[in-house]
Amino acid sequence: MAPIINGRILFNEIPKEYPEPGKTVVYDASEKIDPDTVPLNGGFLLKTVDVSIDPYMRGRMRDPGITSYVPAFQIGKPIDGYVIAKVIRSENPEVKAGDHLFGGLPYQHYTLLKDFGDLRVIENKENLAWFTYLGVLGMPGKTAYMAWKEYSQAKKGETVFVSAGAGPLVIQLTKMDGLRTIGTAGSKEKLKFLEEIGTDISFNYKDGDISKILRDQGGIDIYWDNVGGDLLDKALEASKLYGRFIECGMISGYNTGYNKPILNLFQIFSRSLTMHGFIVNRLEPKYNDEFYKVMPPLVATGKIRHKEDVTRGVEKVEGWNNGKAVVHVADD
Amino acid sequence: MAPIINGRILFNEIPKEYPEPGKTVVYDASEKIDPDTVPLNGGFLLKTVDVSIDPYMRGRMRDPGITSYVPAFQIGKPIDGYVIAKVIRSENPEVKAGDHLFGGLPYQHYTLLKDFGDLRVIENKENLAWFTYLGVLGMPGKTAYMAWKEYSQAKKGETVFVSAGAGPLVIQLTKMDGLRTIGTAGSKEKLKFLEEIGTDISFNYKDGDISKILRDQGGIDIYWDNVGGDLLDKALEASKLYGRFIECGMISGYNTGYNKPILNLFQIFSRSLTMHGFIVNRLEPKYNDEFYKVMPPLVATGKIRHKEDVTRGVEKVEGWNNGKAVVHVADD
Repeated sequence: MAPIINGRILFNEIPKEYPEPGKTVVYDASEKIDPDTVPLNGGFLLKTVDVSIDPYMRGRMRDPGITSYVPAFQIGKPIDGYVIAKVIRSENPEVKAGDHLFGGLPYQHYTLLKDFGDLRVIENKENLAWFTYLGVLGMPGKTAYMAWKEYSQAKKGETVFVSAGAGPLVIQLTKMDGLRTIGTAGSKEKLKFLEEIGTDISFNYKDGDISKILRDQGGIDIYWDNVGGDLLDKALEASKLYGRFIECGMISGYNTGYNKPILNLFQIFSRSLTMHGFIVNRLEPKYNDEFYKVMPPLVATGKIRHKEDVTRGVEKVEGWNNGKAVVHVADD
Repeated sequence: MAPIINGRILFNEIPKEYPEPGKTVVYDASEKIDPDTVPLNGGFLLKTVDVSIDPYMRGRMRDPGITSYVPAFQIGKPIDGYVIAKVIRSENPEVKAGDHLFGGLPYQHYTLLKDFGDLRVIENKENLAWFTYLGVLGMPGKTAYMAWKEYSQAKKGETVFVSAGAGPLVIQLTKMDGLRTIGTAGSKEKLKFLEEIGTDISFNYKDGDISKILRDQGGIDIYWDNVGGDLLDKALEASKLYGRFIECGMISGYNTGYNKPILNLFQIFSRSLTMHGFIVNRLEPKYNDEFYKVMPPLVATGKIRHKEDVTRGVEKVEGWNNGKAVVHVADD
């Protein structure tokens, strides 16, 4: 095979507020690679199958002088994130051609690696579409599964409120545990899905009187927070005694900052609440094996339902939409 | 004895921001009682020895239509709170004349009760001044002891930051557990006491660059929060991974509201923090017996040092100062 373009998604500019398509990240076609002949030097060559676009990545588009839980993207270098990649050739005894790997990799067509590192071979006995391992069986799925197990202290019959975003799996876990579940989303289509998966009360946060809805439901025992800001404030207002707040993220502040007061923050002591913040990587060592054993069969048999937003073509990453999405880069 | 005045402290007016001496609560001399002859009807008569004035009481000076963790004070009725009272006469077999009781009682010279309820007989084998049982051995002491035990997960060598207020006992507990302790207070006298009890780093929060001080100390593992607001924000900024935040109170908002944004709230998930809010009453069933067994000897032998701000005369309650204080009402 003659050398082909190794298309890459480069970090181009730190956004001030919202990322801008074609400015913040850009598709670059300047590098070439010959997958058949490129020397491996004891390593292995990966072909990218699917890449994941996630809200947390906004936090990486920052001045590298600011430290945070994930490193900043570097200007002029490919962005990286959760990827499913197929091994094309290998001189590393830990992997063989044909293996599919999950892990943090650069967003480019071909990647040459020396060490296996934190990557994981995905067996996929259930023969699910590979992008499933970036969604309900990827980072978003792990986030829901692991944090719900670790922090919810759920008791049957309790009421849980799940805010938009990674909601669907969390909601199904709450229903499996016998809770009464209030869910919210921002579109009719998402709300329909929430109803299909058994959400007891669902409403559009854009036009509901959230305080009243939560009050009418008698308050909440658990709040799963992806949003922060005003929704967190209203969940604090509606919390029952000993409520648990699972702080998964605060997407409302990712682009424009955390500059709104949370008027009900005092409920933390007033109602003896506990707030658990987490980053899923830190829970993975404890739960990864359990997750990959328990979840794929539930997805394969339809006991856990899911929807991934899949787009084709690595250059589509440029058109960042700030929601969770999978970009299908190459057929398997 | 002829009837004497049963002086009472009445709740007179809901304050808008800070309580005002002589307006918010007023001393009332309109009621009389004859302690020798008042019929007990199977109950018992108490003489108030000491009453406690605490920051949480500000939250009770509100519209009774607003529910909270403690009931609102009622206009025209005596305020109530933590009291040490002596039994003068009794027809209730649970208590006898001469017993000293601790518990929630109205702020008046004499109180006639039928049921023993949640009161507790204080043995005081160590013969400590009774007001000690409203300070380091009362609600503030229980707050420090019980929440530190329940939530700190302290490990020797960790760094803890204790904000102003009920600090001294918390600080001594942190030192007993082998932690490095940063303390802050708002006056020279208080800072001197913090140093005397072994605080490793102490500074005045009114003129220190708090962010810099906490950063220079390498960040914090535990934050004991009595203050909320800006100090909470800076503690979040300085927190290490897996930090624990013990939310005891947010005094900065008691009078003027919680209307400042907490810019570092996102650190809750970014650094996998846990926040535990609590009200001490809810920990008492678990820890009360242990507390009354362990703490009085430590205080009596000087292993735990303390300072109570004691004023004489029940009418002094009127001159509310919004800090913790004990008012000595009558000699034993």
